[in-house]
Parts: sequence; structure tokens; C-alpha cells
Amino acid sequence: MVLDNVRVREVGLRDGLQIIRAFLPTEHKKAWVDYCSKAGFQEIEATSFVPAKYIPQFVDAAEIVAHATAKPHLQVAAFTPNVKGAELALAAGVHKITCVVSSTESFNQANLRRSRADSLRDAKEIIRLRDAEHGNRSVVVQGALSSAFGCPFEGIVSDKTILELLEELLKLGVDEISVADTVGYANPTQVRRLCRAILRETGDLPVGLHLHDTRGTGLANVLAGLDTGIRYFDSSLGGLGGCPNAPRATGNITTEDLVYMLEAMGLNTGIDLEILFKSREFVRRQLPDVPMFGHITDAGLPKDFQVAQSQDSIPSDKKAS
Amino acid sequence: MVLDNVRVREVGLRDGLQIIRAFLPTEHKKAWVDYCSKAGFQEIEATSFVPAKYIPQFVDAAEIVAHATAKPHLQVAAFTPNVKGAELALAAGVHKITCVVSSTESFNQANLRRSRADSLRDAKEIIRLRDAEHGNRSVVVQGALSSAFGCPFEGIVSDKTILELLEELLKLGVDEISVADTVGYANPTQVRRLCRAILRETGDLPVGLHLHDTRGTGLANVLAGLDTGIRYFDSSLGGLGGCPNAPRATGNITTEDLVYMLEAMGLNTGIDLEILFKSREFVRRQLPDVPMFGHITDAGLPKDFQVAQSQDSIPSDKKAS
Repeated sequence: MVLDNVRVREVGLRDGLQIIRAFLPTEHKKAWVDYCSKAGFQEIEATSFVPAKYIPQFVDAAEIVAHATAKPHLQVAAFTPNVKGAELALAAGVHKITCVVSSTESFNQANLRRSRADSLRDAKEIIRLRDAEHGNRSVVVQGALSSAFGCPFEGIVSDKTILELLEELLKLGVDEISVADTVGYANPTQVRRLCRAILRETGDLPVGLHLHDTRGTGLANVLAGLDTGIRYFDSSLGGLGGCPNAPRATGNITTEDLVYMLEAMGLNTGIDLEILFKSREFVRRQLPDVPMFGHITDAGLPKDFQVAQSQDSIPSDKKAS
Repeated sequence: MVLDNVRVREVGLRDGLQIIRAFLPTEHKKAWVDYCSKAGFQEIEATSFVPAKYIPQFVDAAEIVAHATAKPHLQVAAFTPNVKGAELALAAGVHKITCVVSSTESFNQANLRRSRADSLRDAKEIIRLRDAEHGNRSVVVQGALSSAFGCPFEGIVSDKTILELLEELLKLGVDEISVADTVGYANPTQVRRLCRAILRETGDLPVGLHLHDTRGTGLANVLAGLDTGIRYFDSSLGGLGGCPNAPRATGNITTEDLVYMLEAMGLNTGIDLEILFKSREFVRRQLPDVPMFGHITDAGLPKDFQVAQSQDSIPSDKKAS
């Protein structure tokens, strides 16, 4: 029996921590990285290379990258909102850089303090830097389409806009695409429609989905993405993240629930749920005032969960019984 | 443009209230029914005809049914765990009776205090009573398959078991089938597999899905059900319900999130979200100590949500853009 593999990328250390004011001490961040490695993640987004004056949380970015890249079998990504950030990330030795462009001018300005054209120019320069300093594409450049499913300022974003930005990123020569529902606007119909359109353009390039669960549709959107063939999802431990403007709203989809659902569906994440649950408890202790989300750790795994996995992965037509 | 219609049945007044110890005064239950009617629900499960010594919450069952059946365009269902309950429900004038059989002996005993064979005999007698007292099938008998996706005592339940119980219910002559994930064990792969198998047997009979969001997969399971052709879902305002053994675990899927997702996907529920949100605030005020779940009321609707609906319902190939 062959199980489909799904890559789940833990982004809590970046997207989760970025809106948390309390500084998570560097040693605790490192311990969280250790948990990720031990649980079996193939990739983490470990930090963000942004000026400490904007987000002091990431003042230890280089140290976290050094710690994470020492782990075996762990791809270490970092968010780099501009060329300076990419320079620092490359110097720190990351395996992957995420550069981003937003669906609308207003969101790009609010989030990245520059125009979309400037962000695309940055991406071009980042790829040039990577090629100059790191030949043979040993560092992956991921191009992220932010707020791809809607913008909090401008509302609906047409698929056409996203596909045009995608074309720009592909022309620049990014190695991967990430499609981000940055503000939790996506619904499954839209995910299927837009992802199918994107996958028609991306050929063999890996395409990931970065979903937020702000409006409860997060895991349904994962299912919609799976149906289009996507096998690469970002998520955050405890659903950390969210939006500073909606304090009770959840953030990224919760890693624990995502991994549980995928495994229950008979897909293979390679992630050990018990270690994952322990990492949640560890981070909860370090961030006692930060709300954590998700269901599976409150409810517990179903009885006979391991056996259920095998059963579910047998196609119904071939099922014995 | 034709939108698919989806029936969302509010079951908060039954499944939501049944584990809440605090008695919701009859006048507040009636006001909740009024909200349901005003919001545009086609159907509610209004109450349960169980002995008050077991669940005092439903001591006013007949009065609630009388109030609800006076509303225009509102189908009023009641849960009837046994023949006595069905007699009372018929006398009260319900439009629909739900009789239930569980996937396992142990769950049937725990939940209904009788064997599965006894529950099937009860269903037979309930149908006989309905036919005798209400010719022409003016009262619908829904046969519910409880814990169809797994049992908290016995773990995995084979599709074969469920299909055999389904056959029994169909032989008895039920008018509808409800497939219930009573303890929140279902995953999307399983929902698609089991629902497809069920729909192959049910012909033109309406089939509903009763899902719980205990493990975060509730709306993903809705999407899986939609994919099989199901257009009839139970849900509970504020996700009321849950399990007495898992106090932090959510209960039924949350009506607010479900209706939002369906409408965002371009499906037509006929339900007014703003009135629905008001009903949530009303019930929250009456039950201040009961946790309510769901995301959309915390996060708010996406900007330009109404317009987004129309856009999403246009198939991608025909999209003007």
C-alpha cells in the first residue's frame, strides 16, 4: 500500500511569533526547533529577517538559523521581505528564502512598506544574489503570493491578478510558489478554482498552500487544495499567528489538527503526533498568555486511531469486508 | 446563474441543549425558534421527547413543538429515542421524527439504554404508529445512523456494519436517512467513501449528514459530503453540544461557520447571516456560562462578501475576469 506523502511545513516560529509581543527567549526557540526535528518535520520556516526595530522578536534570526541548519534532514526556510533581509538570510546559511508579493497595492504597502513593483524588483535582486553567492541553486527561492484569496482593504482579488503576479514570479525564476490566504478569506470553491489555474502554469515547480483558519474554513481549504494535487501546506503550532486587528480570530491553520486530519485520511506526513503534542505543551508553557487554538489536543485521538489510518487508506472498491 | 440549494438544519435546540444542565427557559427557547424562522431556516430539530428524569431540559418539548409548528415554512423535527417518545412527538404535532440506531451495541446501550435490535424494533413500531395515526406519511420518519464513523468504546466501525444497519432502516420504510458522526471521528476520506456507498443504496431518499467538529475536521467533512452530492447538513448555533467526557471539545459543527462557508462557496442556504449572528448573541446572553464556538463571528465577514459570493459561483472556465 503506497500512501501519498504530504509535506507539512511548521511556520509557527515565523508567522506565529511575528505578532506576539512577548520575546520568546532564543533558547526556547531552539528547543522548539529541536521538537520539530524530533517530530519528523521535513521543513520549518524558522524565522524572519526583518529589521529588529519593526519586529524585535526576530533579533536572533541568524542564531536560530544556525541552530536549525545543524539538524539533519530539516530544510530551513526564512521569510525575507526585502533584499537586505535576503542578504542576511543567505549569510546565515538558510536553505530556502521566501520573498513575497501581495495581491493588491494597499496590502503590499501595509505589509511590506513598498509597492508590488518594488517587491518584484526585490525578488529579482534576491535571485541574482542567490545565484551570485550560491551557484547551482543550492538555496531555494520561494515566491509567495500574499493575500491571494482576498484583501482586507480591497476585498475581492480576481484570479487574473494572481495569475499575472504568478507569471511575473515565474519569469524571475523562482523555484517554488506559495499561495497564501494571508487574512483567512479563502473558501474551498475558490481554492480549487485558483489552485487549478495556478498548477496549469507552474509545471514541475512545487506549489504550497499557506492557509489561515480565521473564518473556520482552514481544513476544508486544505481538502480543496489536496483535491487539486497540492501536497505542501504551511501550518502553525497551536494555530499561533492571527491578525492584530482581530484579537479573537485564529491565525494559521493549526499544525496538530492538520497533521491529524491528513494522517486520518491515510496520507503520510512523516510527523509523530505524540511528539507534536508535546511540543505544543512546551510552547504553551513558554507563552502562557498567548491563546492557542486547535481541537485534537483537547479532544484526544480517536480510539484505535492507528488502525483507522490503515483502513481509511484502502480505496473503497478494493476493500475486503 | 443557478445556485445549488443546501438545507442546513439547526439542531442546537436539541443536540446543543441536551448536555447543558442549566434550564433554558421555555420563552427563550421559543425566541430562539423565532430567530430560526426569521433567519430563513427550512428545518429545525426543535426538541427531544425523552423522559424528563433523564434530561430535564426537554420537559417543555410539546410546548416548543406547538410554538415551532405555528411558524410558516418551517419543518419541525424532534428526536425520539423510543416508541413512547414518538407517541408524544406525534401527539404534539411534529413534522418529522428522528429515530436512531447506533453502529455498535456498546454505544447503543450507553446512548439509548437498549440493544440495536430493540432500537430497530422501536423504529418499526414508530413507523407503524405514524402510518396508523398519520396516514399518507404526513409525518416524515428519519432513520439516523449514530456513531457511523467510529465508536468511542469500540473504535473503528466498518462500512459493512453501517450498510447493514442502513439496509434494516430502509426495509422498515424510513423516509430519510441521517448519517451521524456522533463523536467527531470522521475524516474526509471516510466521509466520501461511506457516503458514496450509502447513496448507492438510498435512491431518491433524502440523506443528511450530522457532523461534529470535535477534532477540527467538521467543515472539511462537510466539503467531503458535498462532493458526494449530499445537500443536507445538521449544525448547531455556536457549536453547542459536545461531549460530557471532553469538556473543552467542541460539539456539533457551528451553524454560523457552516452557513458562511456554504454561501462563500456559491451555494444557497436561504439563511440570513446577520440574523443568524443576532440569534447567537441572544443565546449567548441566555447561556452566559456555556462556551460557544465558531470563527466567523469573531473574525467578521470578508470585505465585499456579498460580491464575493457571486464571483465564486461562476465556474472558472466561463469567468469573464
